[in-house]
Amino acid sequence: MNSTGIDAIAFYVPQLYVSMDYLAEARGIPAEKLKRGLGLQKMAVPNIGEDAATFAANALLNLITQNNIDPNEIGRVYLGTESAVDGSKPTATYAVEIVEKELSQTYGERSFKNCDILDMTFACVGAVDALHNSLDWVKQDINRKAVVIASDLSKYDINSTGEYTQGAGAVAVLVSHNPSILSIDKTWGIASKSEGDFFKPRRTYKKSELLKSVLTELKIDASKEAIKTFIESTSSGFWSDRNELVEVFKEEPVFDGQFSNACYADRITEALEHFYNQKNTDFATEWNQIVFHLPYAYHGRRIIFDNWLNWIKETPSYNALIEEVGKPEDTDAKTWQKSAYKSKLYSVFISDNIASGELASSEIGNMYTASIFMSLLSYLSDSFNSSNEISGKIIGLIGYGSGSKSKVFEGAVQANWASKIKDVKLFEYLENRTSITVETYEKIHTSKLESPVVEASKIALNYIEKEDTNYGLRRYKVNK
Amino acid sequence: MNSTGIDAIAFYVPQLYVSMDYLAEARGIPAEKLKRGLGLQKMAVPNIGEDAATFAANALLNLITQNNIDPNEIGRVYLGTESAVDGSKPTATYAVEIVEKELSQTYGERSFKNCDILDMTFACVGAVDALHNSLDWVKQDINRKAVVIASDLSKYDINSTGEYTQGAGAVAVLVSHNPSILSIDKTWGIASKSEGDFFKPRRTYKKSELLKSVLTELKIDASKEAIKTFIESTSSGFWSDRNELVEVFKEEPVFDGQFSNACYADRITEALEHFYNQKNTDFATEWNQIVFHLPYAYHGRRIIFDNWLNWIKETPSYNALIEEVGKPEDTDAKTWQKSAYKSKLYSVFISDNIASGELASSEIGNMYTASIFMSLLSYLSDSFNSSNEISGKIIGLIGYGSGSKSKVFEGAVQANWASKIKDVKLFEYLENRTSITVETYEKIHTSKLESPVVEASKIALNYIEKEDTNYGLRRYKVNK
Repeated sequence: MNSTGIDAIAFYVPQLYVSMDYLAEARGIPAEKLKRGLGLQKMAVPNIGEDAATFAANALLNLITQNNIDPNEIGRVYLGTESAVDGSKPTATYAVEIVEKELSQTYGERSFKNCDILDMTFACVGAVDALHNSLDWVKQDINRKAVVIASDLSKYDINSTGEYTQGAGAVAVLVSHNPSILSIDKTWGIASKSEGDFFKPRRTYKKSELLKSVLTELKIDASKEAIKTFIESTSSGFWSDRNELVEVFKEEPVFDGQFSNACYADRITEALEHFYNQKNTDFATEWNQIVFHLPYAYHGRRIIFDNWLNWIKETPSYNALIEEVGKPEDTDAKTWQKSAYKSKLYSVFISDNIASGELASSEIGNMYTASIFMSLLSYLSDSFNSSNEISGKIIGLIGYGSGSKSKVFEGAVQANWASKIKDVKLFEYLENRTSITVETYEKIHTSKLESPVVEASKIALNYIEKEDTNYGLRRYKVNK
Repeated sequence: MNSTGIDAIAFYVPQLYVSMDYLAEARGIPAEKLKRGLGLQKMAVPNIGEDAATFAANALLNLITQNNIDPNEIGRVYLGTESAVDGSKPTATYAVEIVEKELSQTYGERSFKNCDILDMTFACVGAVDALHNSLDWVKQDINRKAVVIASDLSKYDINSTGEYTQGAGAVAVLVSHNPSILSIDKTWGIASKSEGDFFKPRRTYKKSELLKSVLTELKIDASKEAIKTFIESTSSGFWSDRNELVEVFKEEPVFDGQFSNACYADRITEALEHFYNQKNTDFATEWNQIVFHLPYAYHGRRIIFDNWLNWIKETPSYNALIEEVGKPEDTDAKTWQKSAYKSKLYSVFISDNIASGELASSEIGNMYTASIFMSLLSYLSDSFNSSNEISGKIIGLIGYGSGSKSKVFEGAVQANWASKIKDVKLFEYLENRTSITVETYEKIHTSKLESPVVEASKIALNYIEKEDTNYGLRRYKVNK
């Protein structure tokens, strides 16, 4: 029977990064805590002019050129993102516009004319949704090909607990029949529960109060009358807009780290259960590799530990664990858990089934929707570089999106996987990026720089339209 | 062969509306221009506390209760919206949370536990995308059931050219095998081109310039130093946030009406061509009814006219048209077009194939993603109220989303359609809404009201969290 899945894969990560050594020093914490505890080494930082649309365009362009795909044959480009650049116009349209133009000499002016383009939003799991839906679509006709892009920018407040886990970039995959890389099984485990563990709300302010705070601070008459007079006389569009409220967008999320971990753990456990109910998979033995959504590199190995304990409960491995760390009943639960987590048995499980999928995350940071796809690429690239033959291996994929939903699915590595990985050169690219100082990173973070650092990235925002009828429309360019 | 499509349908429209008579008078234009020219009668206005999440929740709740659906059997709830209430957490999760809680006594605490929930964004066509993808998913297993919701709020600046075409509400449909209402064909015509005809950009301001404009207006020292001092001393989160820029979200889009019409016309023509290339449909004779995305009630009849002319070109109808209005070569193109548009032949086409799908739009206004679904419901409800037997009729559906993309598809009305329409009572509901004055509408529009008008809607925002870790999280309530 013919299978569907991932036939090709490409990525984009910004050229700039901050070393965790620098960031830890600037924040006065031991770098080892970030490195050993969380697996963090470097954090990708978008250059001026880079956003979720340029990351996506880069990844799409790389996918097409590295694999000689004719864009006229791509029936859809579905983008998962939680860093959309507009509230109505899909970020995917901007990305496709850039690529369509760039390829017009080779493939014509409208090579995406009959292509279905769309954004999907569910925090970090939106691109898994795009993959899920694209598989359903591809399945119905042997000639169908779809591109799924995951593109995001993970930005947290300076000095916040999330600051170390920032990152950015995109991964694009080609979905087709008889895929070269990964054949994806039809079983999907799904779990949903509405939670407020992490989200990006608009911050609402009363304009009169914003003004009042200025006037009061300056000890100036802040009567309603004075404020009204100001608003009526000013030419600033911000102040003169008739709405009493102003809604501020911030890329930085509102989140509760500990609660979000709990939501992640609960949802993936429920989704694994939902998957198991359909397929009776023995996860500990049938899954050769587990690929996770990774908010930070070591998040997967930490969050799956309780599930792993359950998986091995009735097996000889459990006896081996007891032999190594003693029985749970002989000590308190927390101590035993800690010992078990640090056991040689679990270490072997990590290094055999998880670690190679974490390598890229350590070098990039959180890519939100793209993290799980990057984890897959990390495993494939590391296997290629280490000359590991992995065809036939079963990969379990565990996605999570705050808010909250988990999706669990699995795939089998295909015979030709290496032929589609050899030109991707993930780790080679990551090795050749530019290190920036914490000072420069902070200037980018707080929009205090106006020109690119070092040099402009290949695809970048050119300018934003200022005319009434297209105010805010983004114009991108490809630097040669 | 078994078919898939729409098995049930429900809607929600806010209780409040403004009459076009009032609005036209307030703006000093003839009401007849809006009524006869555009087909506008009333414009739905959301009450205080209503948003895209509450509209969606209402429509979902109505769908479930009117059709006795067990939510545990719903495998997905996909929402198309361009009025999302968050940048990361799907608006669908808020809607499902409200409904899950409301139904918990009957169906348990977690009746959507294994349900796939998601937002899709492509301006006004995002819910058609949700339908398209849900059909693909449902097709693969005879037991699958999906809910697609279209929910939006169309809000334009006061005094702008778009002001008359505002509206709000949601439509929810159940997608299943052997549907009672509409069986949807597998052919989809698609056309895409990145355009800036209508979008919702963030407006970016330099915080220092916002401050400077206040200080300058007040003739106060506006040196960089003074501004820095103020920002460092203020306790306002708005001013003290370290980012130099502030990005403002506005529900009101940036748009170019004429250009958007041209994009709409071009995309639907390309999508019809793409559809025709796959199915060779004779649109003029095989489609008994055409249902459009309607920015305003008469938009469909206007925009399809050129296509209609092409459809009848080689048929006896064209001779009849010539007989009625003369040959095109005997007059200038514009005059002939005008006469042909006003011909009896085209009037009959409108009244037979389009008009009953416009009725609800005249009463509600633009519902963005929900407009095409509401047009379908308008046709079904009007046919039911007029005791027209429409089973077997073929409906052509023409969706459009600015930015830009069109999707064209078709469906056949099923034998049991009336049984699923009889309890919807669309026009009865619309007749029993509350008229508000232009003054009240403007107060709602500019956020100058804090309590609901008349009475709170059944489902409404209760409050927004203010604590650090969940600042901005929206809490809804169901009023009994």
